[in-house]
Amino acid sequence: MAVPSAGRYELHYWPTIPGRGEFVRLALEYAAIPYVDVARLPEDEGGGEEALYASLDRVHPRTIPFAPPYLKAGELVIAQTANILLFLGKRHALAPDDEAGWLWTHQLQLTVTDFVAEVHDTHHPISVGEYYEDQKAEAAKRTAAFRKSRIPKFLGYFEKVLERAAGDWVNGKQVSYADLSLFQVVQGLRYAFPRWMHKHEKNYAKLLALHDRVAALPRITSYLQSPRHIAFNEDGIFRYYKALDRAD
Amino acid sequence: MAVPSAGRYELHYWPTIPGRGEFVRLALEYAAIPYVDVARLPEDEGGGEEALYASLDRVHPRTIPFAPPYLKAGELVIAQTANILLFLGKRHALAPDDEAGWLWTHQLQLTVTDFVAEVHDTHHPISVGEYYEDQKAEAAKRTAAFRKSRIPKFLGYFEKVLERAAGDWVNGKQVSYADLSLFQVVQGLRYAFPRWMHKHEKNYAKLLALHDRVAALPRITSYLQSPRHIAFNEDGIFRYYKALDRAD
Repeated sequence: MAVPSAGRYELHYWPTIPGRGEFVRLALEYAAIPYVDVARLPEDEGGGEEALYASLDRVHPRTIPFAPPYLKAGELVIAQTANILLFLGKRHALAPDDEAGWLWTHQLQLTVTDFVAEVHDTHHPISVGEYYEDQKAEAAKRTAAFRKSRIPKFLGYFEKVLERAAGDWVNGKQVSYADLSLFQVVQGLRYAFPRWMHKHEKNYAKLLALHDRVAALPRITSYLQSPRHIAFNEDGIFRYYKALDRAD
Repeated sequence: MAVPSAGRYELHYWPTIPGRGEFVRLALEYAAIPYVDVARLPEDEGGGEEALYASLDRVHPRTIPFAPPYLKAGELVIAQTANILLFLGKRHALAPDDEAGWLWTHQLQLTVTDFVAEVHDTHHPISVGEYYEDQKAEAAKRTAAFRKSRIPKFLGYFEKVLERAAGDWVNGKQVSYADLSLFQVVQGLRYAFPRWMHKHEKNYAKLLALHDRVAALPRITSYLQSPRHIAFNEDGIFRYYKALDRAD
């Protein structure tokens, strides 16, 4: 396998979906940190899903990832999305320096993590190893409960957090990786549940305003228009299935 | 509400289950950190589920928890189990000091977090807001896939991590909160899936040995026999339902 990126961070994630990797990409892009999205390289340069899967076991003698995404930063191999963001936050000022500040930012991120896992399970309530088409009836039931109770609970929480924030961002004046992740939550929900969002998103005005502020950050605007950005699709976490999207 | 614990940490968690709070309790107990398990106090001293639920909104003007557990440490209010452990790990030497070490320990903990969420969803595959009895058919299907694919995937991963560890513990010579959490994973699986574990646990010899080493740590042994320790039951995360436990 070629070494594509001496000196640069390497992001290793499934090459065809935004998925959990997107939360990391948004942080790298916003902070203008040079990185290589390794699995998206041609296969003869180390890209592709097979190479990614095979790398999990051998990327490090000891600190092996359970699953993508993982980040290589010199000798470090860091997995778990929120852990990668914690690392980037400390090293690249994407979160406050003080203990209360970085703990709070990470706490919010872990709540985003919980939400993302629940989003995934709307289309895979029975088995991650089987297709959505083989668990459609259960997916409809789970997603009904998700729309009715879980989206409002999580978005209501994020809205309350923003109501209490001392400024435009969750930490006040400084953009953090948690702001970028909340942007992605709104993006994903609008993609997966457009009818639900059309009717209900107005209840979360501060969250929508945060979303718009993130979208207007010049490096984010530019990233979203670049070929580095992968559109949502039905292999990822936020998927659009007409049967799962209802206004109520 | 009384202030039960000036100067001590306050753990706030549902008072009748081990649940996610148990991962925090194990760390506090192992490190002999004085704490008050607030919701287990009498109601006139601030205990009880109602007071816990009501506290979420007002425990801090800004850094409010999404859900229990949370830890009050002086002015800090820290939520999300893995985040609490990250904090305790740094402050009380429950994880290595160096960047690679604390990141790795946290990464493992976040994988435990993922597993625990999947354990919960075996008995609640459709809706966290409804009873198990109202989603039994789907629970049987989800748990069949969980036993067949997910337990082996997670335990196989933890086993591999321990095979590669440079000593008795995940970080070699020093006990970390991740070791304590892996102990709890084995405890929980043996409670919830005794038939499955009886047949399969021998495939995870290093994990079982780690479990036994943790159980033999004097402060853990003593904690498990104390009234501070709450037994597993069918309101928690690891639940025993005969219909969900099969050897295959």
